This record gives sequence, C-alpha cells and structure tokens, in this order.
Amino acid sequence: MDYSRAFDDALAKLHDEGRYRTFFDIERRKGQFPHATWVRPDGEEREIAVWCGNDYLGMGQHPVVLKAMHEALDATGAGSGGTRNISGTTVYHKRLEAELADLHGKEAALLFTSAYIANDATLSTLARLLPGLIIYSDALNHASMIEGIRRNGGEKRIFRHNDLDHLRALLEADDPDAPKLIAFESIYSMDGDFAPIAAILDLADEFNAMSYIDEVHAVGMYGPRGGGVAERDGLMGRIDIINGTLAKAYGVMGGYIAASERICDAIRSYAPGFIFTTSLPPAVAAGAAASVAHLKADQTLRDLHQERARVLKMRLKGMGLPIIDHGSHIVPVIVGNPVHTKMLSDMLLEDHGIYAQPINFPTVPRGTERLRFTPSPVHGPGEMDRLVRAMDALWSHCALNRAELSA
Amino acid sequence: MDYSRAFDDALAKLHDEGRYRTFFDIERRKGQFPHATWVRPDGEEREIAVWCGNDYLGMGQHPVVLKAMHEALDATGAGSGGTRNISGTTVYHKRLEAELADLHGKEAALLFTSAYIANDATLSTLARLLPGLIIYSDALNHASMIEGIRRNGGEKRIFRHNDLDHLRALLEADDPDAPKLIAFESIYSMDGDFAPIAAILDLADEFNAMSYIDEVHAVGMYGPRGGGVAERDGLMGRIDIINGTLAKAYGVMGGYIAASERICDAIRSYAPGFIFTTSLPPAVAAGAAASVAHLKADQTLRDLHQERARVLKMRLKGMGLPIIDHGSHIVPVIVGNPVHTKMLSDMLLEDHGIYAQPINFPTVPRGTERLRFTPSPVHGPGEMDRLVRAMDALWSHCALNRAELSA
Ligand SMILES: Cc1ncc(COP(=O)(O)O)c(C=O)c1O
Ligand SMILES: Cc1ncc(COP(=O)(O)O)c(C=O)c1O
Repeated sequence: MDYSRAFDDALAKLHDEGRYRTFFDIERRKGQFPHATWVRPDGEEREIAVWCGNDYLGMGQHPVVLKAMHEALDATGAGSGGTRNISGTTVYHKRLEAELADLHGKEAALLFTSAYIANDATLSTLARLLPGLIIYSDALNHASMIEGIRRNGGEKRIFRHNDLDHLRALLEADDPDAPKLIAFESIYSMDGDFAPIAAILDLADEFNAMSYIDEVHAVGMYGPRGGGVAERDGLMGRIDIINGTLAKAYGVMGGYIAASERICDAIRSYAPGFIFTTSLPPAVAAGAAASVAHLKADQTLRDLHQERARVLKMRLKGMGLPIIDHGSHIVPVIVGNPVHTKMLSDMLLEDHGIYAQPINFPTVPRGTERLRFTPSPVHGPGEMDRLVRAMDALWSHCALNRAELSA
Repeated sequence: MDYSRAFDDALAKLHDEGRYRTFFDIERRKGQFPHATWVRPDGEEREIAVWCGNDYLGMGQHPVVLKAMHEALDATGAGSGGTRNISGTTVYHKRLEAELADLHGKEAALLFTSAYIANDATLSTLARLLPGLIIYSDALNHASMIEGIRRNGGEKRIFRHNDLDHLRALLEADDPDAPKLIAFESIYSMDGDFAPIAAILDLADEFNAMSYIDEVHAVGMYGPRGGGVAERDGLMGRIDIINGTLAKAYGVMGGYIAASERICDAIRSYAPGFIFTTSLPPAVAAGAAASVAHLKADQTLRDLHQERARVLKMRLKGMGLPIIDHGSHIVPVIVGNPVHTKMLSDMLLEDHGIYAQPINFPTVPRGTERLRFTPSPVHGPGEMDRLVRAMDALWSHCALNRAELSA
C-alpha cells in the first residue's frame, strides 16, 4: 500500500477537474468593511473589496459586538477552559441561549461551536433517540445536515428540492406509525431560493412528522426581530427545531438549535458533538449575544440589506447577466464551468480589486459553477459601481453568452 | 408516535441512573485564576476556586494571549465572515497554521474549529480517501475519534487499552496489503496514563500502517517546546498525523492536525467538516498563535505545572485517598458510583467553595465515576491546602473506604 500515492491521486483529480481550491489570504479592516488587505502568495499586499463574505450585515465590525467581546476578554479571559459540563458553562453562554430562545419564541436554545456541528450532532442524535426514525431531507440540504442524517445509518428519504408532491409521496409510502422528521432550509444559500415552509409544515402535521429547519442564511436578516423567514411568515411556533448560526449575519461564530425544553435537554444530554468539546470562548458568546440583541431592534440594517441586494440584481440583470433572482439577499451569477469561473474570479481580483471566490462542486452541482455576490449595508454605491463596471467589462471580454444560462 | 414521551423517557433514564448532568454557571476572573464567580440557580453569587478546568497552564488569562486577541478585534473585527475557502482565510489563520507545523516539525498544519471536529473530520475522510482502510483504535479513545472512525462505516478494530499484544494480533489477522491506520492518544485524559507510543510506532512500521495520535491533553505541556509527549520522547517525526487542541493548555479554542503537505492538502480538499463551516474568528486564531509561540519558550510554566500535580497527588495519597497516578498532570480520585460522586462534588462546592464537576458515564466507564482535579500553575499553596483539607474532611464524613479502590 502506497499512501502518498493515494493522497496524490485524490489531489490530482481535483486539479484535473479544475476544482482544486486555493485559499486567498484576506484581512478585512475593521471600520472599513468591505475593504480588506489581500496578501498575495508572493507577499505583496493589495487593497481589495470583499464581495463574497457571509457577514451579511457587517455586524463583525459593529461597536456593540466588539465592545462586548473586549469586555468579556478583560473580565474572564480567552477560552472557557472546559466542555459545557466540566467548567465550561458561563453566564455568557447562558445569556446567549436565553437570547436565542427568546428570538425564536421557544422554551430553550442550545449552543454549539458552529451551526455545522449543531446540524450534524442534532440530526444524528435524534436518529438515536427515536428508534426507527425516518428523516425526509431536501435534496439540496447543506453538507452538515447530510452528514448528520447519514451518521448513524438511520432511514432517510431524499425529496426533490422544494418538491411538495414528492415529499408527500414519500411520506405516504411509509408506515404511518413510524417516527418521522422533515429537514429543510428556509433559504438555500447558493441559489437564494426559499422553501415552501407553510406547505411543508402542513405535510408534517398531516403525517405526524417533526419539523427541522436550517435558518442559517436567514437569522438576523428576515423577520421583524431577525428570527428568520419563519418569523417573517409567522410560522416559528409550528416548527419543532430551528437551527441557526452566529457566524453569518450575526458576524461572530457559533451555532445553535432552538426548540422545546425537553428536546434541548435531550440533545444536550446525548449528543457527543455537544458534550465532548470545549465550549465557545466567553468573549465569542458575549459578542454573539450583543449582536442578536442588537438585531432584534435594528430593522434599518435589514431594510438596507434587502435594498442593496435588489439594486445589484437589477443592475446586473439590466446588463443581461445570468442572475438567479428569488427575491432574497443572495446574488448568484451562473458561469457553468469551473475553469471559466476561476478565471473570472482571478480577473476580478487582479484587475479590479474585487474578491468573489469561485463556487464549485461539491458546494454546487457540476455545471452550475458560479460567482456568488453578497451585497450588504457596508457595500455603498461606490463599491457597487465598481463591481458592476468590472462585471460588464469582463463579461464582454470573455464573450460569455449573456443571459443564456439565466434562471 | 408520541415524540414528547420519547424525549421524556430518554431523560428519565439519566435521572434514574443518577447521571443527569447539571451545568454550573461559572465565570473565572481574569488575573485571579482559578478564582471564579459561581451563579447559583437562585441567582445568588458565590466565590469559588475552579479545580476541574482544562486551561491547564492558565494561558486563558495570559497577557500575550489577551493582547493578541484585543489587537485582532481592533484590526479586523469579530468573525471571519466566511468558510476557509470563501473569504474566511486570514493572515491570522495562516500564521497559526505555520506556528503549529513548526511546533510539530511537520510540513503543514490544518486548522479546524475544534479538536473534536479535527478528529471526526480527519478520520472519517481518511476512510474515504483510502478505500478499504482498516482503522485500529484504542478502546479508550475519545468520543470524537470514535465518531470519526464510525462515520463512514469503514472497517475498524478496537484493541484493548494500551495492549500491544492485542494490537499485534489484530494487525496480523488482516490482509497485509490492506491500508491501515493506528489511532490512539498520547495521554488518556480521564486516567492520565500514557500510551506506549514508540512500541505502537514500531508495530505501525512493521505492518505498514499509518499512525494517528491525539495529543489534546499534552500539547503545550510536554516536550521542550510544548509539542507533546511525542516531542518529549523524540518521536514526532515517526508519526504521520498529530492532532491537538488550542482550547486546553493553550487556553483559547480550536483544533488542528499537523502532517505532511499532501495529507493536509487532501483533508483540506475533501473533509466536509473542514470545508463547510465558518472559520475561527481571527481574534481566536491570533490568541492561539500567541499562546503556542509563548509556550515554545516558557519551560518554567511546564515545570511548575508538573510540580503542582506531583505535590497534590502526594498529599492526597498521603491521606490514603484512591488516586490514580501515572506520572502525568491529571489527578483522578475514584469514587465508583455516580450518586456518591455527585454528592461529594456538591459538598465540595457548597461547603468549601471548591468546584470539581463529577465525571460520570459515558465520559468514563460505569463503576469508575470520579472527581478529576487539574492542578495548574495558578493553583497556589493556599488553594491546594484548602482542597486537601476539604477532601480530608469529606472523605471521613462520607466514610468512604480510603484506598480501597486505589489503582
Ligand atoms: C482526547 C480528546 N480529544 C479531543 C478533544 C476535543 O477537543 P476540543 O475541545 O478542542 O474539541 C477532547 C476534549 O475536549 C479530548 O479529551
Ligand atoms: C445552510 C447552512 N447550514 C449550516 C452551515 C454551517 O454554519 P457554521 O458556519 O456556523 O458552521 C452553513 C455554512 O457555513 C450553511 O450554509
């Protein structure tokens, strides 16, 4: 057995398919988002604007967040020093969980080190706690949900993306008495489309299934208090488990579920991914709590966010670019080939100081490789002009068929 | 299907067995470790000393760590704003990875949000990259390694804890040409015993197996530069993959592997747990890098740590208490029953202001429930006197048989 050879082969495959990933070394400048310093591989530094981040509202530089973090560092130090059970629960963690339970109108919330591990740990543990559980999973669910669903080898059914008829057919085909869970996202982050939440919940009621929603790309940004699309649509009370992140619109790090007291307590007590890992640093929990609290009140930021997204989509569409537009804050431009996408991305960066990482398989299906822009309140009219002009120039230069792939 | 009932039953089981976990709400005071404020469920605040944390060297309050974190917050804000691939790689992450590669004398290092996810993601991805891989896993390996090994349903063999004969027998029984990996820890954190690392590596050589070591409870604390037990024993160069945490001796948060360039690149490119999650906040990476760099030079702290552990074990043994002593920094006192352990822990806290969380199944095998003390450089003679006196009083009070369970 030649181990080196096996690793080399795996890497060669990525190179051959043009989807080997190179990380760009970026440092955003606090107070000047989206401006950042890009350190090139040769060490040269360049000024750029970040257009592909998921700090959707610029909360990562918000004074209330940073103040809370500095204060917690000064009060209690850097790390928590333990797992949640063994000395790693602080008032900062408790406060954040209370803030999140309140955000979603649930009895309780449970904090994880990320939304990835929240999805993975919760879904895999539900499969253990409810023997015979069948999980109905949207075909485009995030990798972290897929990993959680697959982990313990339980029963699963994959329904076609947002396809209610298919979901119904799958539910009908199974034993009415089997425990069931429908797992889906509110906004799918790569296309920016919404799930038919109310209709899925109707099916959950009809078939006595539990419901699990990932609102990672919606919390902070939708609903009058930032509770997500389910809050906006008045549906939070009908959902059993809501998953969210503190690392995107809230600008910090961490993930959670919000649910009934008994569900949170059961996951807390049984999920290895919750139990056997050091808890978040108190300063991170403090910053996240400040961000969640702030966004419960700051509707202006949410409105500005939506407006910026609308304007960018309008302008890019006006130029005939193949934008996907489902009315959310995400602006995907389909290129459809990993090599072209990377070329476009490199030219945007090199020639225009605009950073939008190419999005390839497995993050999106092959043939739908894209640039994905994330306008935000910190992307002002000047930045937007520069992006639109750059895209116009590049698109002509590359002779890409405008609107050919438009959805 | 009655879902509430299923969750209630799962929780009732824990209550019945006396191992339902209650989290204590603790806030350490920076500059005064191990002193902390305990907020009781009724809201009353009490002064306590933390004796069960894993911030083994008190680095969580070290000025170099906190300065680095404050500075990064001021320079670049709170979160990274993206996954490593999509705008979430900063100079802080790169610097930390370089620091860690250097620490272990490896070509590269790869940062994860925790050592839990580093173990889980790396081991499960190796099973995918090396078809037919057989993983030989020590029976007492940490939950995160077990989850990673089980995840993709690959072949595994569990060898009795530290049992070289058993490991050899298992290796001999398998196809000599099958890809193999031996996964183990350098220090097992609940007993504080060491693995026979050199002998395991000899077997790995003999059977052409890769080697994977978890040094989570050793990095920062062992070896002339804090590279762990393998550094102390001059064995790092013989190990293929070294796993460590930034959340224990380094006092912050995060986990990593250090390995060859090609292994790190393959895991980086294929592991969902690395790819699909927001990267660590730059401030966390900055604090961790400062801590790792500091501990490469500060042998004094390591020496003091070992001395404190030796003194505590000597004093508790002198009183006839059933200490497990394998010459490491961990001081377990076996009680052997979950209810008694919880009672002792509660009395230590209530009557003596000493916090040592009871350690129960599944963290340790049933019948070996224990208190686990973690003396550190911040636990001075005064704190130690108080602990020893309190244990003496409680042990008599509870009429526990001294030394009966001693190992
Ligand atoms: C042996 C071992 N490995 C890995 C981990 C996970 O480390 P982290 O807290 O960084 O997730 C732990 C404990 O937390 C551990 O004890
Ligand atoms: C839909 C979805 N769920 C979960 C996650 C994981 O969130 P986190 O970054 O907090 O791990 C992501 C992206 O990172 C995501 O896009």
